[in-house]
Amino acid sequence: MSILIENVQFNNKEIDIYIEGNLISEIGDVNVEAEHVIDGKSKAAIPGLVNTHTHAAMTLLRSYADDMALQEWLSTKIWPVEANITKDDIYWGTKLACLEMIKSGTIMFNDMYYHGEIAAKAVKEMGIRGVLSEVFFDMFDETKGEKGKKKVIKGIEELKQFKSERVIPALGPHTIYTVSGEGLQWMREFADKHDLLMHFHLAESKKENEDFVKKQGMRPVPYLEKIGFLCENLVATHCVWLDKKDMEILARHKVKISHNPVSNMKLAVGAMLPYNDLISAGCHVSLGTDGCASNNNLDIFESMKFAALGQKMFTSDPTTLSASEVLKMATKSGAEALRTNGGEIAEGMLADILLLNLKDPAFTPNHNLISNIVYSANSSCVDTTICDGKILMRGRKVEGEDTILSKANEIAADLVQRSLNK
Amino acid sequence: MSILIENVQFNNKEIDIYIEGNLISEIGDVNVEAEHVIDGKSKAAIPGLVNTHTHAAMTLLRSYADDMALQEWLSTKIWPVEANITKDDIYWGTKLACLEMIKSGTIMFNDMYYHGEIAAKAVKEMGIRGVLSEVFFDMFDETKGEKGKKKVIKGIEELKQFKSERVIPALGPHTIYTVSGEGLQWMREFADKHDLLMHFHLAESKKENEDFVKKQGMRPVPYLEKIGFLCENLVATHCVWLDKKDMEILARHKVKISHNPVSNMKLAVGAMLPYNDLISAGCHVSLGTDGCASNNNLDIFESMKFAALGQKMFTSDPTTLSASEVLKMATKSGAEALRTNGGEIAEGMLADILLLNLKDPAFTPNHNLISNIVYSANSSCVDTTICDGKILMRGRKVEGEDTILSKANEIAADLVQRSLNK
Repeated sequence: MSILIENVQFNNKEIDIYIEGNLISEIGDVNVEAEHVIDGKSKAAIPGLVNTHTHAAMTLLRSYADDMALQEWLSTKIWPVEANITKDDIYWGTKLACLEMIKSGTIMFNDMYYHGEIAAKAVKEMGIRGVLSEVFFDMFDETKGEKGKKKVIKGIEELKQFKSERVIPALGPHTIYTVSGEGLQWMREFADKHDLLMHFHLAESKKENEDFVKKQGMRPVPYLEKIGFLCENLVATHCVWLDKKDMEILARHKVKISHNPVSNMKLAVGAMLPYNDLISAGCHVSLGTDGCASNNNLDIFESMKFAALGQKMFTSDPTTLSASEVLKMATKSGAEALRTNGGEIAEGMLADILLLNLKDPAFTPNHNLISNIVYSANSSCVDTTICDGKILMRGRKVEGEDTILSKANEIAADLVQRSLNK
Repeated sequence: MSILIENVQFNNKEIDIYIEGNLISEIGDVNVEAEHVIDGKSKAAIPGLVNTHTHAAMTLLRSYADDMALQEWLSTKIWPVEANITKDDIYWGTKLACLEMIKSGTIMFNDMYYHGEIAAKAVKEMGIRGVLSEVFFDMFDETKGEKGKKKVIKGIEELKQFKSERVIPALGPHTIYTVSGEGLQWMREFADKHDLLMHFHLAESKKENEDFVKKQGMRPVPYLEKIGFLCENLVATHCVWLDKKDMEILARHKVKISHNPVSNMKLAVGAMLPYNDLISAGCHVSLGTDGCASNNNLDIFESMKFAALGQKMFTSDPTTLSASEVLKMATKSGAEALRTNGGEIAEGMLADILLLNLKDPAFTPNHNLISNIVYSANSSCVDTTICDGKILMRGRKVEGEDTILSKANEIAADLVQRSLNK
């Protein structure tokens, strides 16, 4: 397949972009025939967005319970429903999540949940890229650990069967307080052996750090270094409560950090990720939304504004985390964290492109496109979403949208009903 | 004119809403003929949103300069351009602002800027409600003060000529550091005599409070009480840096507080409005965006999420400022602050109504409509905007939109060019 986008705004110029197969083939003044020609007038091209922390199927629990204390929220609301989640729920929940991502300009996500093989089916059908990990926790119990490992091995095999470059198997060790040192070491070895990314929650709350210090006599990050868990293929999400020593260690091991400002603020974790210090230490930071139970959407446009403004407020300095830095976090840095040749519009890169509708009050006037993207627009400015050289949305229309919405509504209501009846 | 909205979701029921003239006439199962019939299927009705702090014409400076320190931003970027602003700029800037507000569900705004009579023309044409005040500052200079007062008197007379219930004249004393005590007292007397609202910036930064204490030996709020400035017709915006004594005083005088979370975070004022303490003190709080130079939009949907999440983060308590409280701030409380019989869908209230498109991933599933409105959706969910019994937007289309966008783009580029050439 080939696509020619004509006369589109890119880097303050009007150019053409030619896509052949799944790659950007030529940029500039292009004179070729293409199967699909898109008029780029009054549109701007930017790289597709990357979300480095999701629990996609939890989109079914969007706005199911809010404004509650964390522990009460989990134990009385979220866990009782999750205990009843079926494969069918995960399938439609992930389809809904992918639909929302396509409509809000996200073309790749880093997911941690159950039944990766079901999520993979949804991802393959929907056309975006998913790094899929089965959540792993042994709760410091050997039997549970062995069972979990078998599930992980089986899960990776199942994902490989999809034989799709867009379905990327990964490992999902949950947290420091749900996985033993032995479990984490096994994960790291398995990841190395099969060249897999790992997806891990780290330093989300002050309490988890304090509890760990009480138990182990050291902070989580030095401990993770000691047991050999840290590496460049690890995506560590949240990373709110880090000290300078932690940051140096994470930088030294090239750990990829996923910042989740909306979830952190909504769950009131008490601080923001220490962005300036992380950058000074040489850390790599990308952007994530977390699951819809705690955000309550998968909208990276919104997360960009929350990230930039959250940092400005947290540091009392309006120059912290500029619009262009945060856009890079959501594109290039995300693609790097997830080891994909994307996040940039350039010849030879993956054809993951958004066309933004500039005929929108949010882009009027347009003194600075990037400021308007980050501070003024919302995700409804995405007119066209292209991933892997295929047009997934055009004029804000996605194939099969109505079916997904009505099926997800039905499934979500039924899931809650089943849980309440228990 | 009469409008019948059939089968629309409202308070978890499917009902009809009948509008006659500019009022909501009947709610429930309505059997009447109407000039306009709107199918409310898959839509939810909520009151139109109210924005209690704007500088509408500054929409022309959207994203003109960002990520800068406050003083540098004002003196090198904003003020040089504002010095060149013309009546024509203000007209098209206000038209653009009104267009953006209609598209994002805001039907009333509290504005402070120059040339209210020009803004009034834009407001009258666009169909929303504007409380319009000419900014007043005497810089502690008697001559400037007298000149300013004459301008204010003339401005109020001009606005009254519009003879429109939607064009509401008000006074705009700027701040405690730009208006003398004498000037503020004159404002209060003039407001009382003509029954006008006043619009005032208060306690936005820590520094302005500290400077004032150095100069006057007391904090701004007790000073304002002492000189007799505080009253129930005063809308005080920002109110970030207040102590408990300040809050008691503001509550006692029934001052209306406008919370501007996005602007406060973006300009890094160093804290958030002390919401819980204000409510405990009995204060009245509504929601504003501030101008587009410092937000960079007029989107109250976005401000609702920032308000709720900002408070949760600031108090380290996820139960602070719930979704339903923040929706009330943006509707009923705003309408109360601006003394209008709106902000609520009930018989006899002003017909200021939004219809939200529930066929959107943001409302799928829809376990809780209000949580979805505040935490999941963005303003593109507004399908229909009705103000004063007139349909201003339907299917996201506003009459004359293209002309306003192209004219505003042209005018804004010219304004910047003129300023750079000086």
